Amino acid sequence: MRALLYNDAYSVTMSDVPDPVIEASTDAIVRVVATCVCGSDLWYYRGQSERPPGSRIGHEFIGVVEEVGTDVGRVAVGDFVVSPFMYSDGSCVHCVNGITSSCVHGGFFAAKGVDGGQGQFVRVPLADGTLVVVPGGQPADELLPHLLALSDVYGTGFHAATTAGVRPGDVVAVVGDGAVGLSGVLAASRLGASRIIALSRNPARQAIATAFGATDLVEARGADAVAEVVELTGGVGVDATLECVGTAESFTTAFALARPGSRVGIVGMPHDVEFPLGIAFRNNVGLGGGLAPARAYLPPLLTEVLEGSVEPGRVFDYEVAFENLAEGYAAMDERRAVKAYARVS
Amino acid sequence: MRALLYNDAYSVTMSDVPDPVIEASTDAIVRVVATCVCGSDLWYYRGQSERPPGSRIGHEFIGVVEEVGTDVGRVAVGDFVVSPFMYSDGSCVHCVNGITSSCVHGGFFAAKGVDGGQGQFVRVPLADGTLVVVPGGQPADELLPHLLALSDVYGTGFHAATTAGVRPGDVVAVVGDGAVGLSGVLAASRLGASRIIALSRNPARQAIATAFGATDLVEARGADAVAEVVELTGGVGVDATLECVGTAESFTTAFALARPGSRVGIVGMPHDVEFPLGIAFRNNVGLGGGLAPARAYLPPLLTEVLEGSVEPGRVFDYEVAFENLAEGYAAMDERRAVKAYARVS
Repeated sequence: MRALLYNDAYSVTMSDVPDPVIEASTDAIVRVVATCVCGSDLWYYRGQSERPPGSRIGHEFIGVVEEVGTDVGRVAVGDFVVSPFMYSDGSCVHCVNGITSSCVHGGFFAAKGVDGGQGQFVRVPLADGTLVVVPGGQPADELLPHLLALSDVYGTGFHAATTAGVRPGDVVAVVGDGAVGLSGVLAASRLGASRIIALSRNPARQAIATAFGATDLVEARGADAVAEVVELTGGVGVDATLECVGTAESFTTAFALARPGSRVGIVGMPHDVEFPLGIAFRNNVGLGGGLAPARAYLPPLLTEVLEGSVEPGRVFDYEVAFENLAEGYAAMDERRAVKAYARVS
Repeated sequence: MRALLYNDAYSVTMSDVPDPVIEASTDAIVRVVATCVCGSDLWYYRGQSERPPGSRIGHEFIGVVEEVGTDVGRVAVGDFVVSPFMYSDGSCVHCVNGITSSCVHGGFFAAKGVDGGQGQFVRVPLADGTLVVVPGGQPADELLPHLLALSDVYGTGFHAATTAGVRPGDVVAVVGDGAVGLSGVLAASRLGASRIIALSRNPARQAIATAFGATDLVEARGADAVAEVVELTGGVGVDATLECVGTAESFTTAFALARPGSRVGIVGMPHDVEFPLGIAFRNNVGLGGGLAPARAYLPPLLTEVLEGSVEPGRVFDYEVAFENLAEGYAAMDERRAVKAYARVS
């Protein structure tokens, strides 16, 4: 089988690798139908995080179950499934509490000993807890990007909106116009926000934000962005803030434009952030979010995608042939693409 | 009139000061019946924060309205009132949102140009928004400490419990056994926690914690305390955490013993805290709280005190004559007292 492997900074290569086999009785083998590149894949691509040369990569995929272990009961051969970006047992205390990303037995795809999602086949641990079956068999082609978005990006944006406490009628700000930030705009819209202020200066991303429900676009950054948002809200600040970047500047911006008593939902893995605890304390601005429990959000979000009420796959603005998936990395790295998509089989 | 004044580190003196007069039409003059010393008063007492020599101090008081400005309509001469530790207009967007501590026109007692609460009389700005009338006139003497606790300490502990999201049946940890931490234990109990783990090694404070509803006492600190709480909860962590100290160690402890998906409510003004953002992100442990909007909690908490269903004034374990209130500071500084109380008139 073919899979994308990491070599070195700025070097990923489509290669021949061994077919996966069932290793544990709770495993399933999935034939991947579509996969994509995540913003977090760029960390190792750019050499900003360590990764062993020759390792499989990627963690977003949808596909068809080809084989199951003897203890798999809720997923059957032939099922079309969405996989969240982490595997989880679905039964531990944290899974039951809805924080599947803290599963006692769970972990990341593409971690040591676990297949990456950017390949023709993936061995899925804890298949019963992890995979979500799409009812009705193989979906129409045009649904595939929207289903794939449930693997990570839309669930992550939804987590930002949920943990920021977005409620009907709220004025919401979204810091970050990457695929997750754009997904956050869509999620805030689905949760009933009356006004969504997207911080974006890129015309292509602005267009997606507007299509997803953004009512205001702020092109300024840092203190100027804060001033503009505060002015847009009559000096009050916003009712809920989605922080979808994870840098020191984005944190400061997010907490500064939040109104007293509101919450900032974070989903961008923080890098070198000095947390603005003084502002948070003085203004009673809370913090929510973290590593998204995408599995927990999958059932309700899947229903909405199948009904056609949301189209989260519109964040995919760059399609490449699977064999050329490395080009998807390059396009995202060079900001020629928001998010790269590849049909695999 | 007599009032306690700040001189220098470890020096506060009961002194003659001018009687207050109505300065704005929204002011009221309150004759103080009881006042007390706050843990935060120890910052300047210990020279850890700046304060002008000769300035009035204190911010917790209850008493009788002696005079009102021409625009005061909801509070009348002769009313017995509780004052929260900050004044607020009650009508701005933040007050309406329940965050009276962010009032657009509000501020702190004992700030520049504003009377402190440790005196025989206090000029109260924005009296209609600030003061809460105790129905039925002068309350029985035994109620006074419980009413005074509503001025700051119990409202602050209640804020920690509320913003930590304590719900009926929750397992709760309270970090900090000062008067605020103990108040947090009581608040968690009132909010229906089934188990309350208090971190305390001081027998006198342990006794109050137990009287307030603590079911478990943990004497260890730091990593040992975390290990003990994690073991007490079967490896899971607690459902809600109250952080009532504000140091780097207490923050780390609080976030480490919180279960994934839970929240830490903070009310201890943070000092030199390196926020544990990595743990918070990985475990989806949220942050709530900040400067307590004590005014917003006053009406429901007042009802409970008058019904006798809570006795938050049990945190006062040291009574001094008003003229000797400086001794209350010394007793708290030397940890001979949890919280010092003085009857004024």
